[in-house]
Amino acid sequence: MEHPVLAVDAMGGDAGTAVVVPAALTFLANHPRVSLFLVGDREQIEPLLASAGAERRARAEIVAASEIVEMDEAPADALRKKKDSSMRVAIDLVKAGRAQACISAGNTGALMAISRFVLKTLPGIDRPAIISGIPARDGHTLMLDLGANSDCSPEQLLQFAVMGTVIAAELHGIARPRVGLLNIGTEQNKGNEAIRQAGKMLARSELNYVGFIEGNDIMSGRVDVVVTDGFTGNVSLKTMEGLVRMLFQSIRDEVGKSWRQRLVALAAAPMLRSLQAKLDPRLYNGASLVGLQGIVIKSHGSADEIAFRNALRTALIEIRKDAPGQIGALMTRQNVMEDAV
Amino acid sequence: MEHPVLAVDAMGGDAGTAVVVPAALTFLANHPRVSLFLVGDREQIEPLLASAGAERRARAEIVAASEIVEMDEAPADALRKKKDSSMRVAIDLVKAGRAQACISAGNTGALMAISRFVLKTLPGIDRPAIISGIPARDGHTLMLDLGANSDCSPEQLLQFAVMGTVIAAELHGIARPRVGLLNIGTEQNKGNEAIRQAGKMLARSELNYVGFIEGNDIMSGRVDVVVTDGFTGNVSLKTMEGLVRMLFQSIRDEVGKSWRQRLVALAAAPMLRSLQAKLDPRLYNGASLVGLQGIVIKSHGSADEIAFRNALRTALIEIRKDAPGQIGALMTRQNVMEDAV
Repeated sequence: MEHPVLAVDAMGGDAGTAVVVPAALTFLANHPRVSLFLVGDREQIEPLLASAGAERRARAEIVAASEIVEMDEAPADALRKKKDSSMRVAIDLVKAGRAQACISAGNTGALMAISRFVLKTLPGIDRPAIISGIPARDGHTLMLDLGANSDCSPEQLLQFAVMGTVIAAELHGIARPRVGLLNIGTEQNKGNEAIRQAGKMLARSELNYVGFIEGNDIMSGRVDVVVTDGFTGNVSLKTMEGLVRMLFQSIRDEVGKSWRQRLVALAAAPMLRSLQAKLDPRLYNGASLVGLQGIVIKSHGSADEIAFRNALRTALIEIRKDAPGQIGALMTRQNVMEDAV
Repeated sequence: MEHPVLAVDAMGGDAGTAVVVPAALTFLANHPRVSLFLVGDREQIEPLLASAGAERRARAEIVAASEIVEMDEAPADALRKKKDSSMRVAIDLVKAGRAQACISAGNTGALMAISRFVLKTLPGIDRPAIISGIPARDGHTLMLDLGANSDCSPEQLLQFAVMGTVIAAELHGIARPRVGLLNIGTEQNKGNEAIRQAGKMLARSELNYVGFIEGNDIMSGRVDVVVTDGFTGNVSLKTMEGLVRMLFQSIRDEVGKSWRQRLVALAAAPMLRSLQAKLDPRLYNGASLVGLQGIVIKSHGSADEIAFRNALRTALIEIRKDAPGQIGALMTRQNVMEDAV
């Protein structure tokens, strides 16, 4: 890992190059051994690099791509019809071994479909999942799937549990990560058939499965890994984002009411900042598409520069830890264990 | 509505009579024209009434029930085998017209199954749903289903939208309530087949449907009614509860760190209290099972006295507004409108 190379979809996300390129330049300044491919429309990217000195400019290579996957485009269309999209070309660079990770703030479904088609899943994995850290009582909880798979089979939920365990153990150094399956009650008869079946499979597995958990345990510190389907996971994640936003808006409203409140707010600022830092969704930006033969990081579509830099940082960590290699190895071991049962 | 009568499942919830009976007595003190049936084990209930004066005692009639529905009991078992459970007897009192509402903190699935069997659903409603207020930017949002139906058909989601519209309009006085369908993206191709189909049906309906919304819009004030299946709704609701708990715990942790923080916290206390009051899940306790030919209120299983009193208060409001009658009338009108399309 002498010289990590990241393939960046420069056109992805709500703001496209306006966020991605400045974030990339700051990232290069902070990581002097990293190089980037900036994939997309050369005419849009080039001017944004003008402010960078020759040293950084030399580590930011533009790779032209003539198409853009739209945020609302059907994933199947993006896969079939846009072979020269910035997203596709960035993933192709990983497949070709020219980069070790792809980072995109673009259309999640398309990123998933193209990654899966180009890079393929690891042996034993049906479909990749999106995993990210969620703020929790004493640190954070890893949660997957956060939106890649609306409907999940029991087998897929078990695979998510294995992948989550690997990420928690290998990338976050947690010994025997505790895995919870998200449900609407902790009793065995709760939820739908897929959840109940997955619960039985997890109970038979060698994973450190603690059972069904409810939404209020995602952040309680009771588990290290929360397993759920992509629909529920995405809604839960965005519920948190919405609540945090409402909360800080409420604080601002309160503070605006009187001079006394403003003085209090000034005094309380360090406390509130510490709280906000803990909850800031930008710091949890950079979800991984796990289960692929390659590293793909999904940034939030509305990511700002700070958030996008975090996505780049996540990519770098996964490269250093060889996340796909670790997942592949532990999936194999898990399958060997299960075959032996 | 000279003299409302509530049938209270005195044995339901984690704490049973220890919470329900004291909450009921305080409620009676605050509502001098209301009477209660306290349904359950006479030997447990009787001593808890000892402190009440003769006036309140006369308005709290014990109705004996020899069985209790366990919190983890399969709803079908509770329905078939426990004909003399406190929950069943309370619902029977509503069916018999001796009470106008049933309130229980017991097993949600059982409450749903028994209510549906005994009271029946309103014409045009397949299954009842659980609806409750959720704190939002400028007030609150109504959300359903919060856990009664794990899997929902598009038709059911449409029925939820109608019921939510009625509750928002008739009970909360919102003109033309804006309805959003919870999904993992706002584009038409997002989500699973049931959601997309429901979206099309809602777009054709006469409701004020604004389209798909994501989790972060539940509390943004963008909509008045959030429609979702009971699995997603329950996880989302409990995610909020967990986040709020973590948040106030974090504030307490910060405050414990230094004297300066303690002084700041003292000064900021009114602001934090106002925030906590807005988010306190106890104040949002008393979810309604809507869609039934009768009023059934579900209290949180872990409700304390304050929370349980709120559930009783919700029952009283629904009685005064004749919620089932209003839903029935508007369902009929909605069906007439749809048949005319």
